[in-house]
Amino acid sequence: MIFTSDNAHIVSPEILKAIAAANEGTVSSYGADQLTQRLGEVLGGLFGREVAAFPVMTGTAANALALATVTPSYGAIFCHAEAHVQSSEFGAPEFFSGAKLVTIEGADGRMTGQGLADMLELFPANDVHYVKPATVTITQSTEMGTLYRPAEISQIKAVADTRSLAFHMDGARFANAMAALDCSAAAITCDAGVDVLSFGATKNGAMAAEVVIFFDPRHAEEFAYRRKRGGHLVSKMRFVSAQLLAYLEDDLWLRNARHANAMATRLAEGLANLSGVTLIYAVEANEIFIRLPRRIIAALEALGAQFYDWPMSGDGPEVGTVRLVTSFATQAREVEQFLKCAAHIG
Amino acid sequence: MIFTSDNAHIVSPEILKAIAAANEGTVSSYGADQLTQRLGEVLGGLFGREVAAFPVMTGTAANALALATVTPSYGAIFCHAEAHVQSSEFGAPEFFSGAKLVTIEGADGRMTGQGLADMLELFPANDVHYVKPATVTITQSTEMGTLYRPAEISQIKAVADTRSLAFHMDGARFANAMAALDCSAAAITCDAGVDVLSFGATKNGAMAAEVVIFFDPRHAEEFAYRRKRGGHLVSKMRFVSAQLLAYLEDDLWLRNARHANAMATRLAEGLANLSGVTLIYAVEANEIFIRLPRRIIAALEALGAQFYDWPMSGDGPEVGTVRLVTSFATQAREVEQFLKCAAHIG
Amino acid sequence: MIFTSDNAHIVSPEILKAIAAANEGTVSSYGADQLTQRLGEVLGGLFGREVAAFPVMTGTAANALALATVTPSYGAIFCHAEAHVQSSEFGAPEFFSGAKLVTIEGADGRMTGQGLADMLELFPANDVHYVKPATVTITQSTEMGTLYRPAEISQIKAVADTRSLAFHMDGARFANAMAALDCSAAAITCDAGVDVLSFGATKNGAMAAEVVIFFDPRHAEEFAYRRKRGGHLVSKMRFVSAQLLAYLEDDLWLRNARHANAMATRLAEGLANLSGVTLIYAVEANEIFIRLPRRIIAALEALGAQFYDWPMSGDGPEVGTVRLVTSFATQAREVEQFLKCAAHIG
Amino acid sequence: MIFTSDNAHIVSPEILKAIAAANEGTVSSYGADQLTQRLGEVLGGLFGREVAAFPVMTGTAANALALATVTPSYGAIFCHAEAHVQSSEFGAPEFFSGAKLVTIEGADGRMTGQGLADMLELFPANDVHYVKPATVTITQSTEMGTLYRPAEISQIKAVADTRSLAFHMDGARFANAMAALDCSAAAITCDAGVDVLSFGATKNGAMAAEVVIFFDPRHAEEFAYRRKRGGHLVSKMRFVSAQLLAYLEDDLWLRNARHANAMATRLAEGLANLSGVTLIYAVEANEIFIRLPRRIIAALEALGAQFYDWPMSGDGPEVGTVRLVTSFATQAREVEQFLKCAAHIG
Repeated sequence: MIFTSDNAHIVSPEILKAIAAANEGTVSSYGADQLTQRLGEVLGGLFGREVAAFPVMTGTAANALALATVTPSYGAIFCHAEAHVQSSEFGAPEFFSGAKLVTIEGADGRMTGQGLADMLELFPANDVHYVKPATVTITQSTEMGTLYRPAEISQIKAVADTRSLAFHMDGARFANAMAALDCSAAAITCDAGVDVLSFGATKNGAMAAEVVIFFDPRHAEEFAYRRKRGGHLVSKMRFVSAQLLAYLEDDLWLRNARHANAMATRLAEGLANLSGVTLIYAVEANEIFIRLPRRIIAALEALGAQFYDWPMSGDGPEVGTVRLVTSFATQAREVEQFLKCAAHIG
Repeated sequence: MIFTSDNAHIVSPEILKAIAAANEGTVSSYGADQLTQRLGEVLGGLFGREVAAFPVMTGTAANALALATVTPSYGAIFCHAEAHVQSSEFGAPEFFSGAKLVTIEGADGRMTGQGLADMLELFPANDVHYVKPATVTITQSTEMGTLYRPAEISQIKAVADTRSLAFHMDGARFANAMAALDCSAAAITCDAGVDVLSFGATKNGAMAAEVVIFFDPRHAEEFAYRRKRGGHLVSKMRFVSAQLLAYLEDDLWLRNARHANAMATRLAEGLANLSGVTLIYAVEANEIFIRLPRRIIAALEALGAQFYDWPMSGDGPEVGTVRLVTSFATQAREVEQFLKCAAHIG
Repeated sequence: MIFTSDNAHIVSPEILKAIAAANEGTVSSYGADQLTQRLGEVLGGLFGREVAAFPVMTGTAANALALATVTPSYGAIFCHAEAHVQSSEFGAPEFFSGAKLVTIEGADGRMTGQGLADMLELFPANDVHYVKPATVTITQSTEMGTLYRPAEISQIKAVADTRSLAFHMDGARFANAMAALDCSAAAITCDAGVDVLSFGATKNGAMAAEVVIFFDPRHAEEFAYRRKRGGHLVSKMRFVSAQLLAYLEDDLWLRNARHANAMATRLAEGLANLSGVTLIYAVEANEIFIRLPRRIIAALEALGAQFYDWPMSGDGPEVGTVRLVTSFATQAREVEQFLKCAAHIG
Repeated sequence: MIFTSDNAHIVSPEILKAIAAANEGTVSSYGADQLTQRLGEVLGGLFGREVAAFPVMTGTAANALALATVTPSYGAIFCHAEAHVQSSEFGAPEFFSGAKLVTIEGADGRMTGQGLADMLELFPANDVHYVKPATVTITQSTEMGTLYRPAEISQIKAVADTRSLAFHMDGARFANAMAALDCSAAAITCDAGVDVLSFGATKNGAMAAEVVIFFDPRHAEEFAYRRKRGGHLVSKMRFVSAQLLAYLEDDLWLRNARHANAMATRLAEGLANLSGVTLIYAVEANEIFIRLPRRIIAALEALGAQFYDWPMSGDGPEVGTVRLVTSFATQAREVEQFLKCAAHIG
């Protein structure tokens, strides 16, 4: 009953197999190998256009380097107040970019076009006293386990265009969004105006593999320099690209994500039936936030369930909020056991 | 006949096996797992003292983060003019530390205590116009394939102490040095005054694994923060630690390095016998620098040999310098074939 | 009727005279002159202890360098949501320190000890995912023209101590606070726990002169290096120190501030009598924030009054908020004229 | 007999008068005043084209901000090994730009086009392992008191163009160069290919005033942001602009520099006649480097002469090198007295 985080889980056997298969012969290092070249082609196919794709090994690196590439050091990056780049990356986006994060509130972990527009009004054009609006970043699926639909993204894009903002998507859980949405990968990224995507794989079955995708190749050269300068250019790159290829081939990424999402849906449905348990957000991907009596939290932990406390306003001495995350490796019996325990305690 | 770089080669089968073995069950992420804890213990055993050990995935990350941790942003880092941190890391050490690299010349890729002392004379104490002397870094084995003996390191340390410099060793090829030297790992690091070591594994058989080792635990907390902020904290850390454990266990690291060194020695001996070929540096580890007629270089390449041109003063229209690097995966027959081709052409 | 900002005004004649008097003979540059030494002594007398004092030429430099000196690059700096360092310094504090600003709400431009304590609870000790609590900074007088009393500062200090935070005070308008408070300079700084003070003079009669004062000399050396590296070490320092000495001697700083405060008080009293005009904050120093009908704002501007719009929640199509700032050079007849115009329009 | 540095001297009376004259009435702050606007026009007239001009208060700020504006953070800045940006600015250019300085040797403090070309050969295009060639900077007059002629600058420009480098000139002593050269200000800057000039005034009679001039207005907006973020946007800007206007009007800058140069010429001629004294470089501006017996150095100091030791290779136990700098305020009788002392001792 481990629901702490998707990165507590193993590597998909298919991906491990691909790593082993790549361990043959000498190849050029630093990405000048055939697997890395093929990765670019596969991603080009997925998004229906030529892309510039750069593998890295952590999600923080992907986000921070992507944002630094499209944001000048004197710029503002607009993000949701709960965004991972703001809350969980230890200032890496600021460190790599020099820019300032400006947070925007928004229900259910989502920024809206209107919310962005309202914030931009506080930034007069050509004002030298505050940072210059430069970039907007959203997370898909969000930190709250909710989703942006194409129309919502397009609305943000329309506002971003009024100030020529670059548009970044943190897709650490992009697969979970794609598995839930009924649209193409292009429809919620490049077609909706996203300029650069951090496409995650580690949380959904890879070992350590993310890929930054620029839909506009203009930034590619700069990213390459920044990746190297950040110590994020892996020498034996073939082994990162091999992970990503296996992830994409045969739709492993979608299969893994569909399973994780299904486990979350089942868990949410079961919990919703229990008295005293409140779902905080709609469960649209693989994360569940519930408020429940603290005595139940303690009892579940005593029975071996693992998850994170997620303190929120509305909690009190009697009730607290926790986050449950499911993964491709979460087993149906774990979910049922958890529900049974919760029901029993309740 | 691939002699371009040690990182063009595969992963040691033992290390691949260890990765697969680690792929079992859910564990805490970000390094709070048992393999990472065990790695610290194994390294403590190797160096005969408690150490603070931090796995990362690239050598540039290891060096840049280590240097940033021991150097204030207004400090000077003294390094050899040919050091990897100066010539091949794209300014990463400066980016992470804010400090300034100051280069020192020295024969055979080695800095001497006297060379450091001479340079330090140009930095008056408490002078606010130039950067403050803070750190000295050396590479073991050096970029030129030569070695520092314990006495040489102690001399540098003695000079470093006159200005309270921190002492860092870039051990990207530490195994190649240890395989060649007749002393303990402690004798050429902590016992000789080294404060922090970038202990490399990727060039010698790992997939993507280096470990930064602080002999003084005072810096450990800061390093942890800097690693995270640099995007270098791997979530599924167990797979990095598994590589490093397999590398250290059963002396795989030394066996691999001994083989690479032996291949280099054989290559150097064979080449030394050829007329018109000059060895530039003593071959003490796994790198060979030779000057030879350009027509032989071209002919060797035409026969499929791969290596890098290494332009040096002394080259001319007729003769050029190349670098040959051997690895744990270099095969004796590749070496013999290369020598045969060279002899035949010459 | 110029109420835009205190820095739109002239230099105090006494300060101009001191600059001219300093223009005699050759002296050591970069601060090794007698005026700069004397400045340190005068400040030591003012605060009743030995201090390390560093003149700089802008308030942003003073704040950013002071914060960078006491905050590690992986640290969090806690400030009020409306603080100048957050809203008006274009990311300079982050640029110089590398740290992340974390904003805390608080009524009337003031942070409370409780507000800081609540925020600190969101930062678990030794958590590598968010920045490390390092520094708290408050502004005296605040951006809203209000004041911190010694007891309020001591409460913040008590909370800061629970996490070993450094304590910085932005005193761009320190004189306006001191002129209004009935206590010694030490009582609201070092005696209340402040570690480092940005003591401003430019807004209150100097040409370009601020001084950073460390009550703990431990940080002095580092500040000297950071000031130079930031391009803020003035070569002909005597002319900055001369400004500061003239500012402090004969209580010019307090006389100037008392006048500015008195003008603000008179303005506020007069405005409070008008119907349709709301004072947003208590007027305790030299800044006034009022909400009034937009037609009056426009009419005042048409009559030549100058001030800044200050959009706030609560404004609407009919009413807006403006900020009025008085200075040592504001004349009583300007104030009366403004009040007469406002009354006449209203 | 003070020959330590030009910034040990006073402010030109004309400049002090201009500051006092500017102290009248309220004006817009942060550079939106009429004096600052007029400064732009005067500089436009001087260079015969529209320029974007930004006053700052230190030479280090001028250089570091100018270089940061034209150099990406992953770029290389090529400078002479003795350049002020390399030797005397405490890493400020790197701090503001993120870039790496790469030094080029060259006789008499001058870089040559050929020297730059040779260095650029070590930087292959699109190589991700070393920093990207981005900018070249030269100092006029040089740190060695020598000059670049227009043809030399054009040669550097021709090489810079082969790699699209930006071209910066550090003109901390630009006036001394202009006073010595028989050409227009445009001829040795924009007409010869310089993109951005740090035009110094502080060393030649101003109090604290330099101005960064972009000949291509494309970079102006970014510079404005960087100046603010660096804490270098002065609020009461009129007083900096007033200094610069007085400096330029009636050719004060050239008159001051001609005097300083004449004093240096007289000093050099007198010293050249003494036995045992060697001029190290041609004296073309206001700096003199001489090697002389150490007993004479000591005797001169004992008689009250002040100057800096300037250790160079070629010095020994008996002879040392010193630097003498003259200024607009150096008096002829100081020079004669120095020569008389030297002759008497010798």
